[in-house]
Amino acid sequence: MAFNMVAGHAKWPKVNDAIFGLAAKAKEAIDKYGKENVIDSTLGALVDDKGDLICLNTVYQELKSMPDAAIAAYAQVAGQPDFLETVPNICFGKYRPDAHIRAVATPGGTGSVRHSIYNYTEPGDSILISDWFWSPYITISEEYGRKATTFELFNSKNEFNMESFKEKFEELLNKQKRLVTILNTPANNPTGYSLSDEEWDEVLNLAKENAKDPENRIIIVVDCAYIDYAGIGDERRKFFAKFSGLPKNILIIAAFSMSKGYTMYGMRSGAAICISSDEEIAEEFYYSCLHSNRANWSNGTRAAMEIMTRIAKDPEKTKAYEAEVKEAKMMLRKRADAFVKGAKEAGLEILPYRDGFFVSIPCKDAKKASDELIKENLFVVALKKGLRFAVCAVSEEKCKTAPAIIKKVLDRIE
Amino acid sequence: MAFNMVAGHAKWPKVNDAIFGLAAKAKEAIDKYGKENVIDSTLGALVDDKGDLICLNTVYQELKSMPDAAIAAYAQVAGQPDFLETVPNICFGKYRPDAHIRAVATPGGTGSVRHSIYNYTEPGDSILISDWFWSPYITISEEYGRKATTFELFNSKNEFNMESFKEKFEELLNKQKRLVTILNTPANNPTGYSLSDEEWDEVLNLAKENAKDPENRIIIVVDCAYIDYAGIGDERRKFFAKFSGLPKNILIIAAFSMSKGYTMYGMRSGAAICISSDEEIAEEFYYSCLHSNRANWSNGTRAAMEIMTRIAKDPEKTKAYEAEVKEAKMMLRKRADAFVKGAKEAGLEILPYRDGFFVSIPCKDAKKASDELIKENLFVVALKKGLRFAVCAVSEEKCKTAPAIIKKVLDRIE
Repeated sequence: MAFNMVAGHAKWPKVNDAIFGLAAKAKEAIDKYGKENVIDSTLGALVDDKGDLICLNTVYQELKSMPDAAIAAYAQVAGQPDFLETVPNICFGKYRPDAHIRAVATPGGTGSVRHSIYNYTEPGDSILISDWFWSPYITISEEYGRKATTFELFNSKNEFNMESFKEKFEELLNKQKRLVTILNTPANNPTGYSLSDEEWDEVLNLAKENAKDPENRIIIVVDCAYIDYAGIGDERRKFFAKFSGLPKNILIIAAFSMSKGYTMYGMRSGAAICISSDEEIAEEFYYSCLHSNRANWSNGTRAAMEIMTRIAKDPEKTKAYEAEVKEAKMMLRKRADAFVKGAKEAGLEILPYRDGFFVSIPCKDAKKASDELIKENLFVVALKKGLRFAVCAVSEEKCKTAPAIIKKVLDRIE
Repeated sequence: MAFNMVAGHAKWPKVNDAIFGLAAKAKEAIDKYGKENVIDSTLGALVDDKGDLICLNTVYQELKSMPDAAIAAYAQVAGQPDFLETVPNICFGKYRPDAHIRAVATPGGTGSVRHSIYNYTEPGDSILISDWFWSPYITISEEYGRKATTFELFNSKNEFNMESFKEKFEELLNKQKRLVTILNTPANNPTGYSLSDEEWDEVLNLAKENAKDPENRIIIVVDCAYIDYAGIGDERRKFFAKFSGLPKNILIIAAFSMSKGYTMYGMRSGAAICISSDEEIAEEFYYSCLHSNRANWSNGTRAAMEIMTRIAKDPEKTKAYEAEVKEAKMMLRKRADAFVKGAKEAGLEILPYRDGFFVSIPCKDAKKASDELIKENLFVVALKKGLRFAVCAVSEEKCKTAPAIIKKVLDRIE
């Protein structure tokens, strides 16, 4: 047997990030065949029709005109006070729940998901996620000796599968007496699904029913990384208001990210925002996350926090920023519409898309499908249950034609 | 008993960062009595004689002239390939050890200390640190259910206490069969001590002696966050060359930080760099840290990595950058000399200072001493075993006069 230096829990297979590997292959194809002949739908970042990363002007003008010291100085461990005051306003918009709200800065949304999983589960516990999931939920869980159980996101009518959610939710909660479940909505990665307000009511009714047992502890993490690209106006923020006046053994944690909404993927900023009817539980959350911040990355990227607060404080800048985001959202909407229409015309089955960066195509052997599609110069990420097509990364024109190519390949191999 | 939502291991006291609290009080005093009448020695960042944070021009010009997309894009999970290639050169200088070297980007040095502790200890293990320590070593250990044992950093002659180090080292290793020990050198925080090359030989001889038992696993973390402000020229990097050809059950991890050397505290960048004679163990380190990156913060601050590689690639920029760092180092040296001389003249006992941002003053009741010094408008951080005076934050003039003020207060209260 090989000699290990790492501890048992920290030994991991030699696996590199599959998406970056595929993106590198796409780049090779572009160099060889030309941009116009390749569809690169790998990375989850917003690019324009020429294939260039979209970087909001309002954001980068702010960064580049900021005094050096505002970038250089350490931020406070929990985050800068004005950032922590601003971030719930940005996240909830008009729909701030009537509750005790505390925020802690984290590197992107990942950091807040990490805090939620590590601080709110016991070793060996299972978290609950949908069967179409963002794979780092698994990475975080296994890093800390936690497991993940999945429910079926969709029923046979392609609606949110409340039955499956309820079954797994109660099964785990009865066993563990505490449950962290992550709902990646609105604009789910990888499906583009968004829970409707009625579906949120059902989820909360289930939670409230189970909260009647005072020994049950229910933690619902709302991973809303893509919220700025969801719905028309503020409609996809309405559900936040439903978190008012919940029983104290239901805690909501919003995992907020600046990566997409501010096009600052590489700046690593976001926040964990707790919503509780109980002040003591909100305080407990704050000090637990504060400890975790100090113990993992010390403090967050100061410049990113400054950018948010400087824009938020200035109505003119806010207006310009919002206009830029709206434009990007419209572009995304057109691309997704083109893909959905193309899929219909080609007879390609896709999952119900409502918002955001991705559309998913269920298929039996996704790895094989992705490999075959490479031969067609179409690069798409293979998931467990299907393919993830990133409309955020592909022009409207190509979104129109991609479904027929995918359909042809799936027909050939299935 | 209060109702908790967090899991047992994640419940922490409501304690805010003491240093930030003290810094806020210093700011109040400055507003009230004027800058010239207050000595604010709280924060661990380099400020000029006017009290302004030093931000290296070469660094911030690079950031502000960089294309937005180089800042906005996600970095790879392990870090950008050119950064990972450059960072060992920057860290080791001319003294690169002959060994298998792998690097992974982390947020500041904290992230790499986190990876070292979490991935290389078993739950319940104790790490070994000196009795003058940077407090996050404790925070990280307790976050993960690890303990910390201290050895005495100095013997009665104020030299590195090899006897105490050996005793605790062997005691823990015999019990645990694996040991992570952190040596914060050169330019130790809080004492300013740097292990001499001869002391390093003794440390490595002890490790090699104990490595003869093939079941022992020895991990030495070199926290070198302040290395750029240590010694004359490259002399304080020489010890890195000693890590060539070690037995395979001794692993060295350098916790490298860009916070101080690049004056980018708030940008959160650094690296964990492993040094092993065994390729397989270096690979294991890489994939273990890669998993931990993904599971905690996903990826690092892209712009900071870009800044390092862009400067390193360009000889002119490198020259300008090094000149700026050298100037800051000379300023620091003059301040420390003034403090050490002032202490001698005032008869104030201090720990042996060699390099870096801080000087420490041993005393019985540090909290009381710090409180009393506030009344003298001198703000200094209380540690377990004494006071930490930040020469990085105080002008040469004030470094000269501070020791007598401290001496007077200590005489009064002790």
